[in-house]
Amino acid sequence: QDSFEEIKIDSLGFKPEQDGEGLIQKSLPKSWTDRIKVSGYIQARYNGLFETNPDLEVPQMDKNWGADKGISLRRVRLKVSGWLLDNVYVYMQADFAGSPTLRDAYMDLYFDHHKSTWLRVGQSKVPFGFENMQSSQFRIPLDRTDAINSALPNERDLMAVMYHTPQKVRKIYEYMKRNNLKHSGNYGTFALGAYNGQGINTSDLNENLHVVARASWPFQFANDQIMELSIHGYTGQYVLPNTSEGLEAEITNGNGEKEIVYAAGQNFDDARLGATFVWYPQPIGFQAEYNYGKGPEYDVPTNMVKTKELHGGYAMLYAKIDYTHHQFFPFVRYIYYDGGKKFELDARSYNVNDVEIGVEWQPNRAFEFVAMYTIANRTYVDSQNPYNDQAGNLLRLQMQVNF
Amino acid sequence: QDSFEEIKIDSLGFKPEQDGEGLIQKSLPKSWTDRIKVSGYIQARYNGLFETNPDLEVPQMDKNWGADKGISLRRVRLKVSGWLLDNVYVYMQADFAGSPTLRDAYMDLYFDHHKSTWLRVGQSKVPFGFENMQSSQFRIPLDRTDAINSALPNERDLMAVMYHTPQKVRKIYEYMKRNNLKHSGNYGTFALGAYNGQGINTSDLNENLHVVARASWPFQFANDQIMELSIHGYTGQYVLPNTSEGLEAEITNGNGEKEIVYAAGQNFDDARLGATFVWYPQPIGFQAEYNYGKGPEYDVPTNMVKTKELHGGYAMLYAKIDYTHHQFFPFVRYIYYDGGKKFELDARSYNVNDVEIGVEWQPNRAFEFVAMYTIANRTYVDSQNPYNDQAGNLLRLQMQVNF
Amino acid sequence: QDSFEEIKIDSLGFKPEQDGEGLIQKSLPKSWTDRIKVSGYIQARYNGLFETNPDLEVPQMDKNWGADKGISLRRVRLKVSGWLLDNVYVYMQADFAGSPTLRDAYMDLYFDHHKSTWLRVGQSKVPFGFENMQSSQFRIPLDRTDAINSALPNERDLMAVMYHTPQKVRKIYEYMKRNNLKHSGNYGTFALGAYNGQGINTSDLNENLHVVARASWPFQFANDQIMELSIHGYTGQYVLPNTSEGLEAEITNGNGEKEIVYAAGQNFDDARLGATFVWYPQPIGFQAEYNYGKGPEYDVPTNMVKTKELHGGYAMLYAKIDYTHHQFFPFVRYIYYDGGKKFELDARSYNVNDVEIGVEWQPNRAFEFVAMYTIANRTYVDSQNPYNDQAGNLLRLQMQVNF
Repeated sequence: QDSFEEIKIDSLGFKPEQDGEGLIQKSLPKSWTDRIKVSGYIQARYNGLFETNPDLEVPQMDKNWGADKGISLRRVRLKVSGWLLDNVYVYMQADFAGSPTLRDAYMDLYFDHHKSTWLRVGQSKVPFGFENMQSSQFRIPLDRTDAINSALPNERDLMAVMYHTPQKVRKIYEYMKRNNLKHSGNYGTFALGAYNGQGINTSDLNENLHVVARASWPFQFANDQIMELSIHGYTGQYVLPNTSEGLEAEITNGNGEKEIVYAAGQNFDDARLGATFVWYPQPIGFQAEYNYGKGPEYDVPTNMVKTKELHGGYAMLYAKIDYTHHQFFPFVRYIYYDGGKKFELDARSYNVNDVEIGVEWQPNRAFEFVAMYTIANRTYVDSQNPYNDQAGNLLRLQMQVNF
Repeated sequence: QDSFEEIKIDSLGFKPEQDGEGLIQKSLPKSWTDRIKVSGYIQARYNGLFETNPDLEVPQMDKNWGADKGISLRRVRLKVSGWLLDNVYVYMQADFAGSPTLRDAYMDLYFDHHKSTWLRVGQSKVPFGFENMQSSQFRIPLDRTDAINSALPNERDLMAVMYHTPQKVRKIYEYMKRNNLKHSGNYGTFALGAYNGQGINTSDLNENLHVVARASWPFQFANDQIMELSIHGYTGQYVLPNTSEGLEAEITNGNGEKEIVYAAGQNFDDARLGATFVWYPQPIGFQAEYNYGKGPEYDVPTNMVKTKELHGGYAMLYAKIDYTHHQFFPFVRYIYYDGGKKFELDARSYNVNDVEIGVEWQPNRAFEFVAMYTIANRTYVDSQNPYNDQAGNLLRLQMQVNF
Repeated sequence: QDSFEEIKIDSLGFKPEQDGEGLIQKSLPKSWTDRIKVSGYIQARYNGLFETNPDLEVPQMDKNWGADKGISLRRVRLKVSGWLLDNVYVYMQADFAGSPTLRDAYMDLYFDHHKSTWLRVGQSKVPFGFENMQSSQFRIPLDRTDAINSALPNERDLMAVMYHTPQKVRKIYEYMKRNNLKHSGNYGTFALGAYNGQGINTSDLNENLHVVARASWPFQFANDQIMELSIHGYTGQYVLPNTSEGLEAEITNGNGEKEIVYAAGQNFDDARLGATFVWYPQPIGFQAEYNYGKGPEYDVPTNMVKTKELHGGYAMLYAKIDYTHHQFFPFVRYIYYDGGKKFELDARSYNVNDVEIGVEWQPNRAFEFVAMYTIANRTYVDSQNPYNDQAGNLLRLQMQVNF
């Protein structure tokens, strides 16, 4: 009934007059309000309660985390999306928090009569991981994790990706949507594509595109419980967008020899392999992801950027509790990450050990409230700040409206 | 009938099936076009006629006031707003003139069955003053006044505010809407809240939030004439966003002693108390506001920023004249302000004495035209420009379209 | 039926209840979805195939043309437009590719009962040329030409323009719309107006406005073939927005003597006269434009900016081929330009000789694909890069979705 669910799930109408004859519709819906819809959501936050360490900041996740930031808007999203024909879908999303930026702008072209195979071109989420795919509109904790999201800050890139979702899997997605099980949305049971690799709203900076692949299958058992398993990986070369002046890097040249060069403008290997396990909350859920890879990372002893190993993941135990017409999602999550953040200054080196305990409360489909206590322990260093261990706790609050 | 009126007035449907049972609606309107509407307005201006002093600029009010600025767009506003449930309202507004910026993004949560008490969270107008509350879409003169608007440039901040409007007052608002009496919109008969205090789209810069309170009551007499009286005030501490390098400030330290420090990064007291009187135009209207307070202000003799008194106000005599289906709003307004503008360079010191004579013409509900002759006399000084008296006259024109 | 056509063509309903009595409608359409519609289009590109010269860049046309730019979004357009009354029309368009910017924000006020004469005020396309008027949504080749578009980068300015289109011409426009003949849209058979002259989203920088005039008449013959002829011109004075430090210019002063001054801040003559010939594709089409004028241009021998002659044009042979429900538009285009680009660094001097061969494929009304092979030969020089001849070929691809 309500249409706040993930975008691709919109395609699950299964109307017989469309689904079996996908490619024969030739004219657009007459009314513009049938071609597209306008929707969005707003997240307002207050990160200032019971803060024990004002120097602890987590800019990738929330720029208003840290000393004295007051009330903030984390996301102000406006979307325009719709099925123009039964084989052409468009999606556009902008964020208006702070200064306006484009998030998504893509077109989907379907190749078969069952809406199961499609090509997506434009700026969209790169199919790597589960939490990256899941909209912040539906995620239970306030932020994604360093472990997974450090692969793709803002989750998106300029790309061309082929997706395939078998019809039987779409029916499981539909079941999860109907039951508000916090699925990630339909980003393909199988996905294979190429993307620039330098992040959102950015031209590529080297001659190669990143390549990404993902397979994710939901198994629904006789008792209706659902388990989803995914593997996903990407590989490419990355140019650091932000380095301290004169910073050097150790690279391996074409002859296989180590060489010292300036970090700025260099190509660094950037590759990850990850896996996801999700047991959907009927009523107890468990979600875990892990990924392992290599990428540029600031090295303190040598004051250089090197290509280093990185790895990390998270595990979350949660539940879905219905009380009258309210829904509650209590959760506890542990996050671990050891590696660089390629998009931060000098490919800043991180070591993260965070625990979060919280609850999302949905009194209705339009409004959500999240309270979350974070116990963070983070080391993050770059050439300008080579000693930086920050531990601290705080309570974080969010109110969200969906429209 | 037309729906260009102020946002909160949209809530005045008084539909019996909603109004008495506000909290029992559980599902969203099925069509997205019933959940939200898209609307907006555009203001195009020409400030170049009969200009006697090209050096006279009023950047807070109109960046295209001064020498040779040509045709300009003052506001290009796009809004998405709507009742998602009978107790959840969303409002989002962006401005696209110059470079796009977010103006409003908030959610309203209603607590009672009569839509009379609500919590607003997000970025929205701070309930201080009458002209600050009234949308530029409906204001008769082209700009707000230095006297009131210097409290809150852009009128908005990141905030959480409780509002209460009794049902009998909402009926008077409804009467004013129906008769196009240029009300300010429903920002609560009573309001109490907290906000960051550093302005629109900006994080807080110190450990305290500003606090604001307002009470505003419209009295409707037996002859239908309406008089509205308001008092409003706020207090907090403000950090100057823009100071000349090395500029000093005189502050009072914790021991009550005067001390000379650098102005940048200092907390300055920032507090005002104001009052409004409005006699609505049936057909003659009168509107006056005054406020008094203290805040940072550049001091010429010492070349320092000091916490100084400020005060100012305006008085406007106007009328509403119906001629066939056209409406005309002739007006004359006098503005006085003596104080600092905390958000300008060095908390620039102002002394303003302006007279404006003009008329707004509404041939229909979609289009408006304003012509306004301004006789300005302004002194505004900072450490880089400590002698600066500017007087001058000009004719200003505006065309506005409402959609 | 479909409503993706040019904006002004929307006005061609010819509903008897409106068209004869234009000025008597007094109330707005009750539903907001009848007042305005939301629409737009997205263009995704890949310029990286078979590139022979990575140093060849064409920033005015496509910032992602050149070495290693990867997948890009050329345009992400969102429009809000509609007839508010039968004599008031509003149009607003923003682009979200890269960082969001406003393109159009204007109001149209009609003066007669036949929607034939109107005043447009705000930011909109300046009526100079054919390809400048035609939306990129409908143009066959990927980009406009240096020859015409160098007059008005982004095609738009802040302006007030009177338009007139006789009813018999509107019927020809309507015929061309129905048959997808790639018309430019209704920018007036006759147009006369004033604009700032410094480009989109920019204040004027001198005391005079540019003046523009255009006449464009489509002749429809007995066999339904249509030929359109246009002349158009503008004149004004332009201030260079971007000059190397200390760069000098040779100008003619008030006494008619040559004088050497700094280029920054100077007024340069900026005037052009142009003509267009279009034979619409039933099924063979031919389109040619030429313009001649003067403007600021970097001069290599003297290392100065001078007011110099400029001229250039293009000729395009194309066809419209229907195959089942698909439409194909093969084309070949030759571009020539010799002159300055006033809005680029130092009024960069250009000499352009490009040939393009390609095809646009429309499988349906929502989606388009363009492949285009470019053979470019370009010299472009400024004081920082006074020797710069670049020739090269490449294949360019575009996918476009219309919503």
